[in-house]
Amino acid sequence: METSKKDAVIENIHSRKSVRKYVAGKLVGKDDLLTLVKAGMAAPTAKNMQPWAFVVLSERSTLDKLADGLIYAKMLKAAPAAIVVCGNLDKDASGKTWLLDCSAAAQNILLAAEAMGLGAVWTAAYPYEDRTAAVVAALGLPPNIVPLCVIPVGYPDGTEKPKDKWKEENLKWEKWS
Amino acid sequence: METSKKDAVIENIHSRKSVRKYVAGKLVGKDDLLTLVKAGMAAPTAKNMQPWAFVVLSERSTLDKLADGLIYAKMLKAAPAAIVVCGNLDKDASGKTWLLDCSAAAQNILLAAEAMGLGAVWTAAYPYEDRTAAVVAALGLPPNIVPLCVIPVGYPDGTEKPKDKWKEENLKWEKWS
Repeated sequence: METSKKDAVIENIHSRKSVRKYVAGKLVGKDDLLTLVKAGMAAPTAKNMQPWAFVVLSERSTLDKLADGLIYAKMLKAAPAAIVVCGNLDKDASGKTWLLDCSAAAQNILLAAEAMGLGAVWTAAYPYEDRTAAVVAALGLPPNIVPLCVIPVGYPDGTEKPKDKWKEENLKWEKWS
Repeated sequence: METSKKDAVIENIHSRKSVRKYVAGKLVGKDDLLTLVKAGMAAPTAKNMQPWAFVVLSERSTLDKLADGLIYAKMLKAAPAAIVVCGNLDKDASGKTWLLDCSAAAQNILLAAEAMGLGAVWTAAYPYEDRTAAVVAALGLPPNIVPLCVIPVGYPDGTEKPKDKWKEENLKWEKWS
């Protein structure tokens, strides 16, 4: 499909959806997973500290182990891959902005996945202590590496649609009131 | 320029840059500002709470007032517009995930701006109390509305380039070590 860059990007932002159902047995290639992570690392970060780390999972045993510890991420059992977006506290002088920077990186990954015909969904580690502990245990993360979210990735089965979240009352012009 | 959706989106993610210098006197239309805000509202949010509010500024007096209170956002003096991305604490049951949701929304706005030939940059309100207070005062924000960032928007003068932040050491495959 040919289109203008502007239309493609805007359309992709609006067609991105949370995809929790994947085509069974259809794997995601390592090159595609690398493209997703590179998109993540293109996000802006406060003072260019890049306070992040990405763990890519494509082994069935690890995905299953993670699913066992994350009751809200059971779709990992059916996902062929996942990307865990983590903060690196050693690189965040503020101790706070890694959350923002890693969220922007996660959004880049979700948008890249949509554009590549993949399906993905942000499942929370932060701010839940139990989910964070489950991810830390499954991946063997050191104390300075804190998971923000786990993003399962697969080929969408096509049943899930984007939400329309446009609400005029959430927009103000020039001042609050 | 014609291209595939995938290539357009990935290329746009990598060409997005922090733009602090704008073509003098070239205004950004209200329709374009609305397109940016709609892109922001297309971001995913925890439990679909949409805990956000967007304030669009295009009046010189407000932009200047904001610049006076934000020493790291002096480029507001030269920007024809800005979007202030705020959390709405009344809509965030956790009190924490608005930061993530609004960061994803801000990233959508930055990416949409890049695709539209506009230049934009994330300037922090959070986590700084003084900058937050300056934005609250300039816009008359009520107590439940908390600014995350101020995004000046204009037409880039073309001198600023994207950073290459790809670092192989920030990627792990399958487990930490």
